[in-house]
Amino acid sequence: MSGKVKVAVLGATGMIGQRFVEMLEDHPYFEIEGLYASERSEGKRFGDTLKVRDYNYKQETLDMKISKMDVDHISKACRIAFSGIPSELAGPTETELAQKGVAVFTNAGSHRMDPHVPIIVPEVNTDQFCSIKDQDTYGNGGYIVTNANCSSTGIVVPLRALNDAFGLNEVFVSTYQAISGAGYPGVPSLDIVGNVIPFISHEEEKMETELAKMLGTYADGEFKYAGFKVMANCARVPVIDGHTESLVIDMKESPSIEEVAKVLADFRGEPQKLGLPSAPEQPIIVRAEENRPQPIYDVFAGTPDRARGMASSVGRIRCSNGYYKMWVVSHNTLRGGAGGSMLNAEYAYKKGIL
Amino acid sequence: MSGKVKVAVLGATGMIGQRFVEMLEDHPYFEIEGLYASERSEGKRFGDTLKVRDYNYKQETLDMKISKMDVDHISKACRIAFSGIPSELAGPTETELAQKGVAVFTNAGSHRMDPHVPIIVPEVNTDQFCSIKDQDTYGNGGYIVTNANCSSTGIVVPLRALNDAFGLNEVFVSTYQAISGAGYPGVPSLDIVGNVIPFISHEEEKMETELAKMLGTYADGEFKYAGFKVMANCARVPVIDGHTESLVIDMKESPSIEEVAKVLADFRGEPQKLGLPSAPEQPIIVRAEENRPQPIYDVFAGTPDRARGMASSVGRIRCSNGYYKMWVVSHNTLRGGAGGSMLNAEYAYKKGIL
Amino acid sequence: MSGKVKVAVLGATGMIGQRFVEMLEDHPYFEIEGLYASERSEGKRFGDTLKVRDYNYKQETLDMKISKMDVDHISKACRIAFSGIPSELAGPTETELAQKGVAVFTNAGSHRMDPHVPIIVPEVNTDQFCSIKDQDTYGNGGYIVTNANCSSTGIVVPLRALNDAFGLNEVFVSTYQAISGAGYPGVPSLDIVGNVIPFISHEEEKMETELAKMLGTYADGEFKYAGFKVMANCARVPVIDGHTESLVIDMKESPSIEEVAKVLADFRGEPQKLGLPSAPEQPIIVRAEENRPQPIYDVFAGTPDRARGMASSVGRIRCSNGYYKMWVVSHNTLRGGAGGSMLNAEYAYKKGIL
Amino acid sequence: MSGKVKVAVLGATGMIGQRFVEMLEDHPYFEIEGLYASERSEGKRFGDTLKVRDYNYKQETLDMKISKMDVDHISKACRIAFSGIPSELAGPTETELAQKGVAVFTNAGSHRMDPHVPIIVPEVNTDQFCSIKDQDTYGNGGYIVTNANCSSTGIVVPLRALNDAFGLNEVFVSTYQAISGAGYPGVPSLDIVGNVIPFISHEEEKMETELAKMLGTYADGEFKYAGFKVMANCARVPVIDGHTESLVIDMKESPSIEEVAKVLADFRGEPQKLGLPSAPEQPIIVRAEENRPQPIYDVFAGTPDRARGMASSVGRIRCSNGYYKMWVVSHNTLRGGAGGSMLNAEYAYKKGIL
Repeated sequence: MSGKVKVAVLGATGMIGQRFVEMLEDHPYFEIEGLYASERSEGKRFGDTLKVRDYNYKQETLDMKISKMDVDHISKACRIAFSGIPSELAGPTETELAQKGVAVFTNAGSHRMDPHVPIIVPEVNTDQFCSIKDQDTYGNGGYIVTNANCSSTGIVVPLRALNDAFGLNEVFVSTYQAISGAGYPGVPSLDIVGNVIPFISHEEEKMETELAKMLGTYADGEFKYAGFKVMANCARVPVIDGHTESLVIDMKESPSIEEVAKVLADFRGEPQKLGLPSAPEQPIIVRAEENRPQPIYDVFAGTPDRARGMASSVGRIRCSNGYYKMWVVSHNTLRGGAGGSMLNAEYAYKKGIL
Repeated sequence: MSGKVKVAVLGATGMIGQRFVEMLEDHPYFEIEGLYASERSEGKRFGDTLKVRDYNYKQETLDMKISKMDVDHISKACRIAFSGIPSELAGPTETELAQKGVAVFTNAGSHRMDPHVPIIVPEVNTDQFCSIKDQDTYGNGGYIVTNANCSSTGIVVPLRALNDAFGLNEVFVSTYQAISGAGYPGVPSLDIVGNVIPFISHEEEKMETELAKMLGTYADGEFKYAGFKVMANCARVPVIDGHTESLVIDMKESPSIEEVAKVLADFRGEPQKLGLPSAPEQPIIVRAEENRPQPIYDVFAGTPDRARGMASSVGRIRCSNGYYKMWVVSHNTLRGGAGGSMLNAEYAYKKGIL
Repeated sequence: MSGKVKVAVLGATGMIGQRFVEMLEDHPYFEIEGLYASERSEGKRFGDTLKVRDYNYKQETLDMKISKMDVDHISKACRIAFSGIPSELAGPTETELAQKGVAVFTNAGSHRMDPHVPIIVPEVNTDQFCSIKDQDTYGNGGYIVTNANCSSTGIVVPLRALNDAFGLNEVFVSTYQAISGAGYPGVPSLDIVGNVIPFISHEEEKMETELAKMLGTYADGEFKYAGFKVMANCARVPVIDGHTESLVIDMKESPSIEEVAKVLADFRGEPQKLGLPSAPEQPIIVRAEENRPQPIYDVFAGTPDRARGMASSVGRIRCSNGYYKMWVVSHNTLRGGAGGSMLNAEYAYKKGIL
Repeated sequence: MSGKVKVAVLGATGMIGQRFVEMLEDHPYFEIEGLYASERSEGKRFGDTLKVRDYNYKQETLDMKISKMDVDHISKACRIAFSGIPSELAGPTETELAQKGVAVFTNAGSHRMDPHVPIIVPEVNTDQFCSIKDQDTYGNGGYIVTNANCSSTGIVVPLRALNDAFGLNEVFVSTYQAISGAGYPGVPSLDIVGNVIPFISHEEEKMETELAKMLGTYADGEFKYAGFKVMANCARVPVIDGHTESLVIDMKESPSIEEVAKVLADFRGEPQKLGLPSAPEQPIIVRAEENRPQPIYDVFAGTPDRARGMASSVGRIRCSNGYYKMWVVSHNTLRGGAGGSMLNAEYAYKKGIL
């Protein structure tokens, strides 16, 4: 008996599911009870479903078999379900699991706008964790916590730091999103090799609402959105992993570039204070070079161990006509996907919410 | 005797020079006197210096020989020099040619901020052509006219249309620039395959000043800049030809999306009125699809003959928090390079300024 | 009444179908009666189904509507069906059309190994055209003629020339195949960006048999295969259009490199002699450069009009240990796809076999 | 005093040099005395010269400063020099170092064909190590040992195994080489994005001679080449790291596919027997999947720690017309570059040749 919390990985043959598995190898709090996916994959060896290029699974993990999703079994065997199910399918399964008493930490978008479901990035808004108590299933021990959309996650930590220090008025963001963000098989190669696709379904709407929800508050049983405006343009580019984002920000105060850089580099949140296993020591890495951050170098930035894809790198902080301009790179399926929910679950564990 | 104006192509072994050659094949006004480049290329067959992938030169053009730059010879043999010389080298040569009476139409940035040198996109600001009369060399018949930086060119025609109709306050632009824009050898493949480089030297500064210069006026011997603000973030992406640009615009008026689309689609400028050979029938193509424009489909948009890379395609026109959002794709070495100067020279020819 | 032969394009929303449409614009012998595809695409505008990047369709073609496949209608309205239907679906439909009297020119592999169905590349084996007379449906006026697999097509013309002149013993071929060869959506971008996939289902087997069938004979009601051996290794690489092939050849004779080059460059076949509309003037272009052919430059090699993607480019002809080595590039969806069947139909038309 | 052997890394700002540094982090035998490069890089921080995408250097390594090449200093301070100097420059410097008593382990090709300089892949030919005793500088303690060209290295271990077991007659190899193999800046992006370049200067000649030299013997003061023939065609493809190679082999015996697979998988060489630190447990990984090996998954194959890029992966073993066909993937700058020389130096250390 390891004494670790048993967890199910849902959607284990997909891009996000496989990142969950990666983060669960030798995890100090959690251990994998089973890998679940659709009936089509039942019985397959995990190693034969690989989608992640830079994988480094143990042999015993590669040899695990995929099981068919079985809500009853999972709810009996596991305290936690990590969900990498595609958003269009995730909703009902996640609801059912929560009803049966499972704590669901999900990357899917299905429940992000539900009245009492929080979107948590624990460097940003652990105060909103309390909303789970208002979920119908909470009495049962079951609840749903979502991580943010990958593009929102990459910039929400820097925005939190800047909002706290200087106040945000308006955020103009253009994204350069990696193809792993579209899952597998995802984007056909004929569509993206040598191309830019300036459209990702519902992505801009998600960014424009999720950021305000996360930087807002939860009180009296409802979420109150933060007051700043977000204008988002989202595009796909031929990059494997790592979203790059161009930011122009109108702030209430007028700090110097150095002050902005210092506030970002010095920012620490709850995961850092609590020493959560997946937390990067420094959630925001500020780059001084004239041409960074870049996905190929910065997607795994930070310590320990290059932060396992959990830090946001910010660079080229400049000011133009009173607006602050900068670039951000983050790992879209780690920080912006599986890593987000992993950190949420670690927070819940550490705070005794499990 | 063809009766056509003799022209020299400078920098004929480079990316822009080769686009000049392409546009000069069977040109109704101009004929190539010689192809010029640095000493290193002297005597090479043009066809052995190819950089352009989708080339379609005639056999006799492929067989032309490259000559060493010779200002004296060019000034005697040619009325016009089209310059595709790299900006860091172009300045003195272009000045010398103008001094010797040559009309220089250049893609180089060296003289763009000179006091009496106009940056012309003839759909936008032919009224600034008069500034050449204040150049020292004009008495001699020589002058310099520049085309705009490739990223500025792609959006300046739509911005002109919108400014005329609704008034511009602020323009937020993020670019997704093709690698051909960096010339040859340009960007090392190890730097850009599967990557985004959020830095192009001086590009943002150029956009923030050139757009205001072009949409301003020339009076009393000096350029007066337009009053709106530009905030630019520029990045390189792994695309061969075609700059994609994300625009968010604050306008003085509040037109409907349909009105914006109509103003753009209906816009015509001097090149259209004069029927210049390289002018697209419609300088701005408005796309209705949810996922266009894209470089792979739209870089050659328009008529005649898919506009030879001379139209800007605009799509995904939306409104968010009172800001207008849209995407633009244009050909960076045709519309945004050689084609720009070609159109300027055609305008000069037609108006008798040669 | 144009007097042209009416043709149907089957699979018109796919990669090959769209190349058929491209080749049929202003065709001197044929005119499009209708564009056909699966029920899913019924009623769509052709222009809204674009897969081809370098398209140059007329506006009226872009505005054509897709019809659902209707064998009865097609057999009444058309003499010819050009089939770009995926191989796994094409078989029964093509058989039915032939039974109803239609001449089917197909890119699909379904019937290539049928006892009386020829695989024709008209520079190579028009003598095998006679096999159609032994098809059951021939009395009815219907028959099936296939073009070769894209990888076989690229090299079969050079192999014909070399076999005629020097005799082939063994051919070792490794392919570098473009992603357009897998159709659409085809290869997921996560699988191929920055990668090589050394496996294309059944491709090696096809090459090892089709080449011998085409260079063999048809007599006494059956195909006799040529005696040389083919050893093929096939891989997919991140190229949009254009298959590159590495060849090592053991020949019966020992010509000089110059003799090999001359035999290839001088080769002409029936399409050249008959002046067929889609025939390149020179079916094999021999390159002298040390680093050609390359897909980006040579996929459209040749005259007229860069041969519309119908010539094979051969370069780097060398000899090592008595083996002849060379590289070949050809357009996989034109020469190796739609263009192959188009040329077959043009041959049939010209020879009165329609 | 660590008691470790002091080593210099030459060409430390280049692609191979940086892989040497990576392999030297916490090395049990060796410790970095200094990082050397051309004058141009003198004083730069190592971390500011990064070329390797998947780097994972320690902070103190990133902060090391680059020194100018100083043969006198190096020869006094170091027993070993690892050379990642470009081949066209490496020759004289390496000779001078050997003359001054340094053991030079080099990736450069300059000395590979010298009369007494061995090309060592220690799984293959440690018996040739004795040739260093015939180098003029040996009395002084200095000598030169080269690793093989990257394309030869990837296949030489499998070829050794097959030659020992079944005897080789002829090897037909076509390469799909990664761009990191060309160093930095190396291949311009305009040349390789979406393209195949079927030419790498001198690569085919190197493969055709190096393989026979390595599989031959050294006796009576000279190298005797192995008797089999190699026919190589080499191409560059848009892959960052990892050479893929297509092999067709004529063997003296006729083993079953299973026997071939077993011989490859069971093969072990000196590095495995001696337990050298950089040796993979299994130098050849045999893949059973129908579509492997692939660079994106297999370039880091093996144990321990995915073998640090030191194993060759072999897959798709088939037989056609009596020829054996297979595909090989290996890491071109680790196994085929820095890792090769590292293993050579580890062998020398363990055997007391230092």
